Amino acid sequence: MTKPCILCCAITGSVPTKADNPAVPTTVSEQIESSHAAVEAGASIIHAHVRNDDETPTSDPDRFARLKEGLEKHCPGVIIQFSTGGRSGAGKDRGGMLPLRPDMASLSVGSNNFPTRVYENAPDLIDWLSSEMIKYEITPEIEAFDLSHILHAIKMSEEGRLYGKLYVQFVMGVKNAMFADREVFDFYIKMMQKRAPGAEWCAAGIGPNQIVVNEWAIAAGGHTRA
Amino acid sequence: MTKPCILCCAITGSVPTKADNPAVPTTVSEQIESSHAAVEAGASIIHAHVRNDDETPTSDPDRFARLKEGLEKHCPGVIIQFSTGGRSGAGKDRGGMLPLRPDMASLSVGSNNFPTRVYENAPDLIDWLSSEMIKYEITPEIEAFDLSHILHAIKMSEEGRLYGKLYVQFVMGVKNAMFADREVFDFYIKMMQKRAPGAEWCAAGIGPNQIVVNEWAIAAGGHTRA
Ligand SMILES: [Zn+2]
Ligand SMILES: [Zn+2]
Ligand SMILES: [Zn+2]
Ligand SMILES: [Zn+2]
Repeated sequence: MTKPCILCCAITGSVPTKADNPAVPTTVSEQIESSHAAVEAGASIIHAHVRNDDETPTSDPDRFARLKEGLEKHCPGVIIQFSTGGRSGAGKDRGGMLPLRPDMASLSVGSNNFPTRVYENAPDLIDWLSSEMIKYEITPEIEAFDLSHILHAIKMSEEGRLYGKLYVQFVMGVKNAMFADREVFDFYIKMMQKRAPGAEWCAAGIGPNQIVVNEWAIAAGGHTRA
Repeated sequence: MTKPCILCCAITGSVPTKADNPAVPTTVSEQIESSHAAVEAGASIIHAHVRNDDETPTSDPDRFARLKEGLEKHCPGVIIQFSTGGRSGAGKDRGGMLPLRPDMASLSVGSNNFPTRVYENAPDLIDWLSSEMIKYEITPEIEAFDLSHILHAIKMSEEGRLYGKLYVQFVMGVKNAMFADREVFDFYIKMMQKRAPGAEWCAAGIGPNQIVVNEWAIAAGGHTRA
């Protein structure tokens, strides 16, 4: 029996606008249509960011609520994952949509550099977001931008501080964070297999690294982010 | 022929005060005496933080100047390393003492979490500090709090963005940053040996991890921080 590969589709992200690519879905109705197409193409998880009318990122719970309602209607059974990433808000605003009880939500468990700034995930914010996810029964997707983030996620899961089955995503190729590096990727997998054998892992490559990391992840028996 | 082990002594650090331990040298004259004792006990590098009169950490160039003058007089030949760490100041204040031309200065090349907050080293600050070190011919000691920091240091050194010979310190056991983990330690060494064979590495364990990491580093042929 072969193990299925879970494809997660990030339909919008937080950075690109229609000026970058007219196909980027930035309104809720466009996002629902785009998700529908992704699910028909094989995606099992929709990783969602919402946007303001001017296409800037937001954590607005009302927009997330409309998106969730549309996804449940048009893509029944799809796993809905909301982003709690720092580009869409600051502090507790990042988790303001969690009472909507999506199936999953992204969660960073450490800080790191981004291309032009620090991606701040202070310890008390991490504790608050993870406890909100327990409260609303939301499985986190851990966004691991460096090795220590993986080890902290494993420890948090062991301590009962993460809801559900541990699911870690290796994020590679963000400028000033971890490179898309094959040897590091293999070490990440080794750590996961050895220290969290019941967990699942997936991998995301940013920009030109996306297709490279997709191939690595699928060939290595993991899940992947498109 | 065996390779000598370089002992770096952090005489003061930025956190403990005399209330924690009356032996912590917090005035410049105490620091000079403490350095003298460390050098007589075998230290080759003095890693220095200076303090205000109330023992709080500072980056004050005048205090660093007095310390350097005293060290050159009482400990001739010792390698003087100033901290540019974020507990002693913010932004460019952290490098305000670099025109004093110490032999070395600490340099973080990424951000990470500390016990209760984010240790912020934004990309533009890293660029500024590393270019100041080139300007004043100061060899950085890279403080690597996570794996990507090691890889970024190697890349920066290859690109000519770090003065002198690459010298990387693995920092392990800071709460919310990298654990003191033997398997990670071995992977760090593997990366250094494979990708920067001409470089040197050392390791520092924090708190109760200090003696453990000292033993690992000395046995593995590296340098160490006491
Ligand atoms: Zn996202
Ligand atoms: Zn539809
Ligand atoms: Zn220090
Ligand atoms: Zn003396």
